[in-house]
Amino acid sequence: MLKLSVLALTVSMSVAAFAAPQKNEPIQPIEPAVVTDAAKVELGKQLFFDPRLSKSGFISCNSCHNLSMGGSDNLPSSIGHNWQEGPINSPTVLNSSLNLAQFWDGRAADLQEQAGGPIANPMEMGFTHDLAVGVLASIPQYVQSFQDVYNTDTITINEVTDAIAEFEKTLVTPNAPFDQWLQGNDDAISADAKAGYKLFKEVGCTACHNGPAVGGNSFQKMGLFEEYVTDNPAEGVAGLTGDDLDRFKFKVPTLRNVELTYPYFHDGAYWNLEEAVDVMARLQLGRKLDEEQISQMTAFLKSLTGEQPSFAVPMLPPSTAATPRPVPFEKLAE
Amino acid sequence: MLKLSVLALTVSMSVAAFAAPQKNEPIQPIEPAVVTDAAKVELGKQLFFDPRLSKSGFISCNSCHNLSMGGSDNLPSSIGHNWQEGPINSPTVLNSSLNLAQFWDGRAADLQEQAGGPIANPMEMGFTHDLAVGVLASIPQYVQSFQDVYNTDTITINEVTDAIAEFEKTLVTPNAPFDQWLQGNDDAISADAKAGYKLFKEVGCTACHNGPAVGGNSFQKMGLFEEYVTDNPAEGVAGLTGDDLDRFKFKVPTLRNVELTYPYFHDGAYWNLEEAVDVMARLQLGRKLDEEQISQMTAFLKSLTGEQPSFAVPMLPPSTAATPRPVPFEKLAE
Ligand code: HEC
Ligand code: HEC
Ligand code: HEC
Ligand code: HEC
Ligand SMILES: [Ca+2]
Ligand SMILES: [Ca+2]
Repeated sequence: MLKLSVLALTVSMSVAAFAAPQKNEPIQPIEPAVVTDAAKVELGKQLFFDPRLSKSGFISCNSCHNLSMGGSDNLPSSIGHNWQEGPINSPTVLNSSLNLAQFWDGRAADLQEQAGGPIANPMEMGFTHDLAVGVLASIPQYVQSFQDVYNTDTITINEVTDAIAEFEKTLVTPNAPFDQWLQGNDDAISADAKAGYKLFKEVGCTACHNGPAVGGNSFQKMGLFEEYVTDNPAEGVAGLTGDDLDRFKFKVPTLRNVELTYPYFHDGAYWNLEEAVDVMARLQLGRKLDEEQISQMTAFLKSLTGEQPSFAVPMLPPSTAATPRPVPFEKLAE
Repeated sequence: MLKLSVLALTVSMSVAAFAAPQKNEPIQPIEPAVVTDAAKVELGKQLFFDPRLSKSGFISCNSCHNLSMGGSDNLPSSIGHNWQEGPINSPTVLNSSLNLAQFWDGRAADLQEQAGGPIANPMEMGFTHDLAVGVLASIPQYVQSFQDVYNTDTITINEVTDAIAEFEKTLVTPNAPFDQWLQGNDDAISADAKAGYKLFKEVGCTACHNGPAVGGNSFQKMGLFEEYVTDNPAEGVAGLTGDDLDRFKFKVPTLRNVELTYPYFHDGAYWNLEEAVDVMARLQLGRKLDEEQISQMTAFLKSLTGEQPSFAVPMLPPSTAATPRPVPFEKLAE
């Protein structure tokens, strides 16, 4: 417990240093996105929705990070190329720009580095960077957009991932009821939510879930007081470092929009927020919460659902005679 | 040839009877959608995008009729539940309200009847109507929407398909360059497109492709002058009637937005519009077009690309503790 309290103290001190006019709290409001290059964002949006970045021509980023459903797929583990079962739960892309690193184990430094991963992952989009770039280069409207945005005739994976990342940076969800409350509107959240937030701080959740994203800014061991029992073989950061101390260390997920990002935890084993809260209190803090406390905490967590990104369904430019054809079924590849 | 000429004559006569102020042509402009019940359309839009109408929780109507890509999936045959290969090419949902019946063989009378099909089709969404309705009934916002729109506490598949159909009726694509030309703007299409349209009428394409949808209003045999060679076992209308005369009779597809709905024909065997034009002229009219003619005809067909439906990506209401969970992988069903 000592370790955690010290952590909590550090957190609230650093928050104090950045204190805004609003309430001085360990959680800060989400800032709306500032779009500096609208054409780049638009291009990134098309790419995010374009299934031609996958081998099958069927799977886009939006397949697993569905922006109609809080930026994830609401499945325990994803369905990838050829209906392969993914190894881990798909995190939301909402507010992912606020993460200290990307992926559960943080193995990508930022959104651009991350975006190259799924295209070439045989379990996800099952393609290669060269083939994906080849598809784009065969489509005049894309060539024109890359020309306009990057002033280049030659598309490479760098521009592709840069544009996707730029789009993802716009996927923030400001103005949640909780943010309105933080900014002084006392009626923005219910009495239950207020009690839940008080509890959230008191029992120590804010040690790990803090900042504007209410998480996303540290790696922590899952299962401090009790072991987390799961079939999922993911090792967390230890999978990268080989260090046994890093076993089961995962990036603390954002709790923004957590109402929408079920099922919960890296294995997607818990469907109900109430259950996830109970698990967290027991495993991370050694606390057994009663039903009322869980219900209040859940009311608070639901007040973190912000304004979802709203934009028109993007139109994708058509393929041409020169566009390599998708390979949805292996026999076609022969 | 006689049969076709008579048909062409009948068509142009019936057009004359409905002549509008615009040019008296066998093709008429697409009318914009008239929305009489915006709440119903909005509900239908959510359902169209909701993968929870499928067993896996992964496949929505929009997966195979992607409104970012002209309302189809741009695959020869669709990827369905469990990555099963579909039997036939996915037609566009754009302007499908103008069809005399739905499906290649017309086995559904209208959009509402059609919409029940894919949900319960084991090759497509792999679900049942009862389970799909059960999912919706567990989600308070959906219950509220059905209450508001249909004034009922009990959701049935009828309201579900009615709302989807109502949304689909809005998916028309008015104001194509060709329509602007029809309405008197002489510069709306290129000289090539004009020459292509002249040819389209002269050689007899308008016998089958006419009316506002440039098709969709009759069933015709594929392969009148030459047999259409394909691996695809689909029999067309004969599959329904058992009548050998109906073998290879398919609903004539709309040529609206045909630039976007590659690959072509019921088996999706042709990727390039030029090739499809060549096949049609040879097989349906016994004509071998030269390269210039094909290119002009293609320019005309591309002038049929209309304004694509534009709306914000719909937000789907979250599942609850009562919502039956998706079954993406069979082992979870055990
Ligand atoms: C087949 C499913 C699938 C597809 C397709 C997919 N993702 Fe992911 N995504 C995942 C999963 C699963 C993870 C978590 C992987 C991990 O942490 O090891 C993830 C992680 C991420 C993350 C990190 C989020 C975080 O909080 O750590 C981002 C950002 C992301 N994906 C964006 C994208 C983009 C951009 C694309 C398309 C180029 C894409 N994804 C395609 C399933 C998918
Ligand atoms: C010591 C760090 C730590 C503390 C304290 C902590 N959490 Fe977490 N939280 C995590 C980590 C790490 C994960 C991800 C674990 C995993 O997925 O295996 C997580 C995941 C969650 C999730 C699931 C999010 C998702 O999208 O999957 C919820 C909800 C949650 N925490 C709520 C809470 C609540 C409520 C408390 C206090 C009762 C709390 N946490 C305390 C580190 C912590
Ligand atoms: C797995 C792919 C897939 C899914 C999912 C799917 N469709 Fe289809 N759709 C098809 C295919 C393939 C056809 C053609 C079948 C045939 O004609 O026999 C079709 C036909 C249609 C047609 C008829 C169009 C025409 O011109 O005849 C409409 C309308 C339609 N679908 C709407 C929907 C709706 C609404 C949903 C969701 C409830 C849906 N589809 C889900 C693949 C799919
Ligand atoms: C006798 C009727 C008939 C005539 C004449 C005809 N078509 Fe067709 N057309 C069809 C039918 C039926 C299909 C669908 C065949 C199939 O998919 O197997 C079709 C399909 C098409 C397609 C593919 C559409 C798609 O989305 O798959 C194109 C393009 C097309 N026709 C263009 C033309 C052109 C150009 C001409 C004149 C050179 C023409 N057609 C003449 C009946 C006709
Ligand atoms: Ca999740
Ligand atoms: Ca097609």
